[in-house]
Parts: sequence; structure tokens; C-alpha cells
Amino acid sequence: RSFSSTARRSLKIGLIPADGIGKEVIPAARQAIEALGSDIPKPEFIDLLAGWEVFTKTGVALPDETVDILRNECDCALFGSVSSPSRKVVGYSSPIVALRKKLDLYANIRPVVSVAPEVGQQPSVDLIVVRENTECLYVKQETQTEGEKGKEARATRVITEYASRRIGQMAFELANARPRKHLTIIHKSNVLSITDGLFRETVRAVPTLPAVAGKYDGVTIAEQLVDSAVYRLFREPEVFDVMVAPNLYGDIISDAAAALVGSLGLIPSINAGDNFVMGEPVHGSAPDIEGKGIANPLASIRSAALMLRHLGYVKGADRLDNAVDAVIRDGRILTPDLKGTSTTDEVLQAVLKQL
Amino acid sequence: RSFSSTARRSLKIGLIPADGIGKEVIPAARQAIEALGSDIPKPEFIDLLAGWEVFTKTGVALPDETVDILRNECDCALFGSVSSPSRKVVGYSSPIVALRKKLDLYANIRPVVSVAPEVGQQPSVDLIVVRENTECLYVKQETQTEGEKGKEARATRVITEYASRRIGQMAFELANARPRKHLTIIHKSNVLSITDGLFRETVRAVPTLPAVAGKYDGVTIAEQLVDSAVYRLFREPEVFDVMVAPNLYGDIISDAAAALVGSLGLIPSINAGDNFVMGEPVHGSAPDIEGKGIANPLASIRSAALMLRHLGYVKGADRLDNAVDAVIRDGRILTPDLKGTSTTDEVLQAVLKQL
Ligand SMILES: CC(C)[C@H](C(=O)O)[C@@H](O)C(=O)O
Ligand SMILES: CC(C)[C@H](C(=O)O)[C@@H](O)C(=O)O
Repeated sequence: RSFSSTARRSLKIGLIPADGIGKEVIPAARQAIEALGSDIPKPEFIDLLAGWEVFTKTGVALPDETVDILRNECDCALFGSVSSPSRKVVGYSSPIVALRKKLDLYANIRPVVSVAPEVGQQPSVDLIVVRENTECLYVKQETQTEGEKGKEARATRVITEYASRRIGQMAFELANARPRKHLTIIHKSNVLSITDGLFRETVRAVPTLPAVAGKYDGVTIAEQLVDSAVYRLFREPEVFDVMVAPNLYGDIISDAAAALVGSLGLIPSINAGDNFVMGEPVHGSAPDIEGKGIANPLASIRSAALMLRHLGYVKGADRLDNAVDAVIRDGRILTPDLKGTSTTDEVLQAVLKQL
Repeated sequence: RSFSSTARRSLKIGLIPADGIGKEVIPAARQAIEALGSDIPKPEFIDLLAGWEVFTKTGVALPDETVDILRNECDCALFGSVSSPSRKVVGYSSPIVALRKKLDLYANIRPVVSVAPEVGQQPSVDLIVVRENTECLYVKQETQTEGEKGKEARATRVITEYASRRIGQMAFELANARPRKHLTIIHKSNVLSITDGLFRETVRAVPTLPAVAGKYDGVTIAEQLVDSAVYRLFREPEVFDVMVAPNLYGDIISDAAAALVGSLGLIPSINAGDNFVMGEPVHGSAPDIEGKGIANPLASIRSAALMLRHLGYVKGADRLDNAVDAVIRDGRILTPDLKGTSTTDEVLQAVLKQL
């Protein structure tokens, strides 16, 4: 599923740190990429704006320029994290949700792996959450009316066969490439029989599509209601290999999985479409530690690796991942989220040394 | 919030075991209630039907008779668990979701407490999930159309000021009665600014209602996005005291919390309205162990206690809870979900002995 990497002489990477610790971890990921030397085409970085801070200054959370440059000039991008206002602010809407839709980055891929039980990670967690990234309640179609008993608000949840099929294909493709080849479909069709029913049936039918006939014969399929999936993730995470979920369930499931391996500060993701890929740490903007220099850069560095891997630069990706794993296993230089006392920069230097 | 208990000479309890292990654990709860003797009015039980099994026989999952008898003859009820078909079946719809709505049981109250770290419970979990029980995606307004790129399904999520206010009041009332007096509002208003925005604002405004002026001054209020709430539940469950959530988030959050104390087989709930209360174990029908006689009856016995407490029979409720806690702490007679080797009946007998 990676687009060709052979033709490129340079790699144009959009950098959108956005808010909070995004501004601390994305520069760290940039340095890690720069250290890869000839394992990847020469990286060129383009700094781009988005987020709550730029909104407070300009009234726009996702400038057109950012989208245009990503579309027309960049090969890929790294996104940091966004703060959100604590109350509804007219005109403000999450730029990350908008970016995923505008660039049609329909798959949010989030691997969660425990590499070091010794630093408090639950052993035998090795799974990928494949989250649909463009629809479900994230279509943001909401209305409010005045009823007899006060205000009534409604949101529309959209599930289409088209989007369920392409995320299903992505999930089967990923499952098929893994040793266990096991796919669990997450839904809540005991309540949402039509929307989640469509998701489930469409994903289940992927292996019968003529274009992939026979290809996924080795993949076993299971299902789990979203509530019991969260329960089982905590009790027996080893049952899961690849999990595919509609947007909101995927959001929740991936945070649940992150808790098993010690910190959201370790979990990378890519937002992938057919023509573009954007790395993004799963953690948020962490206003409580913003500016203190202690944010964990590992999720961003792993997101860069995932992005490079998706583009076909396996060697560069492997080097980044191995360096991160080595630092976690070593256990001496870690940020406070992992019960360490080191700074963002110290952790970055430790990774660079391992490269 | 309990309706008067003084006038009753007998207590009419509807029993709806429904499907699967519901048929094993509800009879156990019945025996535990019967053993309370004069601590409660003389119990009279009325057996009622609902569920997948009755649907397969009669085409109706929730017979009118069941609803009528609950409404007109019963003081309260105990519900077991329902199986759901693995594919959408025309005419079938979850009877528990329907019952909650028909009897206007708007609050689903789920306490999760660790009483015995020695049997693998994460210590210092002592929280109550207060789940809105009538709206959100559970209104089941779903449609499907044929679009250009295939099928398109839509569900409506409804959040009203009316329902948010009454669940908010219930949550403040519960929080105010607890030592920590701390309430966390669960939402996802960074994406669903109108629906979850309404939920959040309405719950926040409860203490300013004239009818409760000053009453909740001692309650501290926090908020947490649903994804990070699941994450924090696993990492630092001790931060939570009372959590209030819209329907679907409440469903997921309570399963997450259950995982912390070892088994869904321990978690009770009540579905409470202003005029009726129905106890219900949080676990499902567990088809994998159905009929084996090893289902954990403790969640159902605790649900009976919660129901009795809500009705004002504190002494009877305390006795049941203390007996259950003693059996768990003892640790020798437990069902397989708690890594024990005992049967449903052996655990019931152990509880009865402690009473
Ligand atoms: C910031 C928020 C809109 C976002 C989401 O819900 O998708 C975040 O939680 C994530 O997981 O990327
Ligand atoms: C059986 C199902 C409809 C139900 C729900 O989602 O409410 C269950 O999960 C619960 O938590 O009571």
C-alpha cells in the first residue's frame, strides 16, 4: 500500500507542530529524520500553521495555505497536537479532523506494542488499531432546536459502504502481512443495527471482492462489541492482532490500548490516504506540561518512522524504530510520563546516539 | 432519591432472567433476597419474559404483558441479560434498551469498587458511573439509502437539555453523598460541540438550579474527554469518584472500569427512574459458559442490593453487600471468571452463609 519511493531525490515533509507540546516533539522528530542520512532522500521541511493558537491570532484554525502546500508541494507531513477551547467558540473547529477529511486520509493506523515489560508495560501487547478517519460522528453534522422541554441537540452518524470497504481493505492488508493474520471487527450492532451493521457486513465481505480474490484466505476474522472490546483489551490484550473500527470507537480503543504499554507518549499513528500520509503522535497537546521541556518525543519519532515505512523507506523506518526500542528497553533516559526524570532533548539525544 | 419504603407490606419483584446466564444468576439473586427475612417486606416474585429466546419462539422480544405487569403490579425488578443475534434480524430489537425507555428508567447507576486487591483487583478503585439511559445513539433512529458510491447509513444521536439535567442532578446527588464529593463529566465536545456541548453545559449548570440552590456547593467538578477518560481509568483510576456520561460513553466507561476490579461478573447496576427501579448485572448473557453452572452470581446479588438500597431498605442492602464482600475477600469460593473453581451455586451458598 505504499506509494513509490524510487523516483524521489528529495523528500518534502510538511511540519505542523500546532499547539502545546506539539511544538516540542515535532522538532525532535525532525532531528531524528535528519539523522538518517542517505537511508532516505534528502529531507526538506516546510513549516506550516494550524491549531488553536493560530486561531486566536487570525480567526482561522486551518489556513488554506497549509492545506494547499500539503497538497501541492509535500510528499508527506508530521502533525503535532491541538489544544481545544474549554467552551464552544464560534468559528473554531478541530484542524486535525478537517485535515484528515480535506486530504482524504481515510485510515488512521495506530500500532501499540509493548517492547519492555520492565518499564511497566503489560507484556504481549502487539496490535494495530485501524481506525476509519473520515466519517461516523466526525462528519460534524449537528443541529440544535428548542423543544417543549428545552434545548434538543442532534448529531448525525454516517457510515458508508464505500468508506467501510476501503478501511476494511486496509485492515485486511495489514492483518495479512502479520504473523498471526487475525482481524477483529469492532462495532456495536446490537444497538446500531443499521449503521454498525453496514460497517460489519462490508468489512466481512472484503475478502470476497473480485480484486482481492483469495488474497486474504489466511486471515481469521473475529468480532467484538466496542464495550467488551475495551474490557478485553485490559483483561486479555493478547487476543488482539489487528482491530478495525469506525472512527469514534477507534479513537477510544486506541487510547485504551495505549494505557497498556505505559504511556500515550509512546503511541504513533499515521493518517493515510491513497496519495498522502501524515504522521501524528496519538497524545494530545498536554497543556499541563507545555513549555517545560519534558514532553515525550518517542511517539513523534515513531510516527515519523511509520510515515517513512508507509512511503517505502523501510530501512530508515527500521533504524528509527530500533533506536526508540533500545532507549525504552535501556530504561535510564525516559521522560516523566514513563516515570523517568529526563527531558525531551535528553531522550532525543539518546535516540540519536542509538541510530 | 429513594421512594418511600414505609408503606409496603410486601415487595413485588419482577424477575426477567431473559437469556443465557441470566437464567442462572437471577434465580441466585432471588434466593439471596429471600434469605433477608424481616429486613425487608415479604418479597413476592413474578416471573416475566423477554429476550432473544422468547423472540425466536413468539416473534416478540419484549411482550406487552411484561411491560404491563412491571408497570402496574411490581415495586421493582431484576433483569438478567440478553443474547443478540449475530446478524440483523427483522423485528428484533434489544428488550433491555426498550425497557429502559418504556419505564423511563433514565439513570443507569454502576458502582465499581475494589474490595480485595488480593484476588487481582487494582486497589483504590471506588467510583460510580452514572450513565444516561434513554437517549444518545440509543434512540435507534437509523436509516439507509443508496448513494452514488453504494449504501449510506445514518444514525441520529440525540442529547436533550431535559435528559442531561435530570441525569446531572442524579449525579450531583450521588457525588454529594460521598466522602470525596467529586464529579467528572465525560464528553467529547472537542468533536461534538453541539450535542456534547449541551450535555456538558447542562450538567455543569445543575448546581445553579433554584430547586437545589447551595446544595451542591461542596461538590468539585472536573471534565474528561471520553478517550482520555478510558486511558486515565487504566492509569490512575483513583482520580475518579462519580463519573456522569451520555449513554454510549457510559456503556464503554463502565466496562473499562469493570476490568479494573477483576471481572464484569462483579459489577451491579440499577436502571432507575422516578417511579421504578430495575437491578441488572452489567455482564452479558455469556453464551460461552451458558448452562455450565459456573456463572458468577455476585453481580446479580449486588444488583439486588443496589435495588433494595434505592428503595430505602438500607439494612437489607448492607447485609447483601457485606456478604458478597466477605466471599470475595475470603477468596476461596469463587467462579472461574475470578480464577476460582467454584460453581454458581457454591458461591451463592457461601453468600447465604455470610448473611
Ligand atoms: C483531538 C481530537 C479531535 C482527536 C480525535 O478525536 O480524533 C484525538 O483524540 C485523536 O485521537 O487524534
Ligand atoms: C446489551 C446492550 C444493549 C447493553 C447496552 O449497550 O446498554 C449492554 O451493553 C449494557 O451495558 O447494558
